[in-house]
Amino acid sequence: VRIAVIGVGLIGGSIGLAARERLGATVTGTGRQSSSLQRALARGAVDRVADTVEEAVADAEAVFVGVPVGLLPSYVAAALAAAPADCVVTDVGSTKRAVVTAIDDQRFVGGHPLAGAETAGVEHARADLFDGATWYLTPTDGTSGMLYERLHRLLHGLGARPVAIDAETHDRILAVVSHLPHVLANVLVAQAARTLEAGPHPPQRLLATGPSFRDATRVAGASSDIWTDIYLSNRDALTLQIDEAIDRLGRVRDALREADSARVTAWNDAAAEDRRRLLESQLAGGPLFELRASVPNRPGVIAQLALELGRAGVNITDMALYPADDMSEGVVALWIAGEQNARRAQELVSQLGFPVARP
Amino acid sequence: VRIAVIGVGLIGGSIGLAARERLGATVTGTGRQSSSLQRALARGAVDRVADTVEEAVADAEAVFVGVPVGLLPSYVAAALAAAPADCVVTDVGSTKRAVVTAIDDQRFVGGHPLAGAETAGVEHARADLFDGATWYLTPTDGTSGMLYERLHRLLHGLGARPVAIDAETHDRILAVVSHLPHVLANVLVAQAARTLEAGPHPPQRLLATGPSFRDATRVAGASSDIWTDIYLSNRDALTLQIDEAIDRLGRVRDALREADSARVTAWNDAAAEDRRRLLESQLAGGPLFELRASVPNRPGVIAQLALELGRAGVNITDMALYPADDMSEGVVALWIAGEQNARRAQELVSQLGFPVARP
Repeated sequence: VRIAVIGVGLIGGSIGLAARERLGATVTGTGRQSSSLQRALARGAVDRVADTVEEAVADAEAVFVGVPVGLLPSYVAAALAAAPADCVVTDVGSTKRAVVTAIDDQRFVGGHPLAGAETAGVEHARADLFDGATWYLTPTDGTSGMLYERLHRLLHGLGARPVAIDAETHDRILAVVSHLPHVLANVLVAQAARTLEAGPHPPQRLLATGPSFRDATRVAGASSDIWTDIYLSNRDALTLQIDEAIDRLGRVRDALREADSARVTAWNDAAAEDRRRLLESQLAGGPLFELRASVPNRPGVIAQLALELGRAGVNITDMALYPADDMSEGVVALWIAGEQNARRAQELVSQLGFPVARP
Repeated sequence: VRIAVIGVGLIGGSIGLAARERLGATVTGTGRQSSSLQRALARGAVDRVADTVEEAVADAEAVFVGVPVGLLPSYVAAALAAAPADCVVTDVGSTKRAVVTAIDDQRFVGGHPLAGAETAGVEHARADLFDGATWYLTPTDGTSGMLYERLHRLLHGLGARPVAIDAETHDRILAVVSHLPHVLANVLVAQAARTLEAGPHPPQRLLATGPSFRDATRVAGASSDIWTDIYLSNRDALTLQIDEAIDRLGRVRDALREADSARVTAWNDAAAEDRRRLLESQLAGGPLFELRASVPNRPGVIAQLALELGRAGVNITDMALYPADDMSEGVVALWIAGEQNARRAQELVSQLGFPVARP
């Protein structure tokens, strides 16, 4: 498979490494910084370097755009303009509404792998970065089913777990599970630095901070080149989450002021329970079951199916599309982990009006 | 050395394991839960179990009290009442003012190891839990120098880095580097759970959350048996920190609302710089230099010396006290890492009025 990567940083470089190692792909890299491209070449993350987006995507079957969120619409549009008619173009940006709204092309599928955080740059790229990682995809009504399936299989080949989600839900959820944690880490690190400097201890040794502080501030001050765009492009959802956090903090403070031991305990116990459920929910699993559904071969159908299962919390582990000879209709095979999930998937696909069987 | 551990959980159990393995200590355990004591015995964290505090400390040379912060004053007092005249008694509580204020005995030194967080209970105890970990000690004017030195050496033998600090500063700093991170983790996990449940995705699979969320919420909902007391006993310092966090969050929100890219970038870059300095400050190091100071053999002198160096950010890696035969005066040897720190320590000790040399 021939892959183009536009923007070869931590994510783009890891895509290149994994695609070359695991899929035997030929990877062409391009980007804004020639020094990064040379490092990517030296590390084996790309086979060759192209000077322009046009040159990089000319014969590609799949294009990954890994530039800062604010630049995505223009780079994705440039890639689509130069890419072949049957090439899938995706991006790896941390917010999805802006780019998905800006692009109207059946070859485009928005994407976002949940991987990488503390480090940046191609020098930290790893072939196993995506192993087991959720990789959100945001197909729309206009998305080509054939190209969506190709991308899904590619990501599965990179070790990731592709999950379909609509762009709006993605951004709302990421505001609380990623962007707010980054904001809190920044606040905490700044506040701790000021507090420690204000004490009798001189700034040159700010005292040990312990494991909880290290964990809580690991992502503090992540690269502004990437994060200013993320914060701004999701600022409506993020400011709502910040307001809610302020409100919750105010309530904890009140309970503490009143030395209300029962309320503090109830609040803490509830957090323990929330954490337990969140961790539990991450554990997918069970043996794989195959479903085969007959679907019309038109844009949006595979997207609809993937989104519907995503909404129901049913994860598609792997996917294969077998178009009919006349391209008017085809069969999609879905592999679902767990007996119960497979049954639920069968129900849902059936409710969408597609004949479905477990072979 | 004969050690008693009162309350054999993660910390108490790890003290027992490390003391037995590394110091050949005989460890007696006691506590409120006989099931924990039996598990501690089975794991080899203690040599024997005593039914009462009195029995446990009867022939001890050092006592570690590891009960919840709210119970510390009564348990420490009980240990002191029953312990021999030359036995050092310490605790491992996460807040220090309450217990230090409650206890007036030259054999007592408040303590707090910065280790352990996500897990609790003796089943997670490890002999290497304290390796390289800061272990705060809060001696006072009344503290016996001989017993402080014994405790310092013991902790060094467990793998920890003992650092003297006054109880007030300890609690103020821990409010921001430990208690506030726990509060933020609780807030974040609760808020994320509510947001994810409110979406179209059902609670049974709350979607992947990514590495930044896992890091940020690792300590969420830590055991209420321990943490309600910690929060309440430090509520004055903690509510100030919560108020400051609310204020900082409000300012970030305002910059986002105004889509003020320059302000968001400046804020994020400042956090990166704060994090860099905080990380850098944790790296002690350099070769060890020995200092020898002549000190009068009376309570408070070693504490004064340790606190003075602690305030100056000079870490005492190891310490040994050689009392004169008539016990009226003695020599304390201090090992300090790094040429510059050693010079600074020499200055400070000299300024305190004690003759000091580098042998």
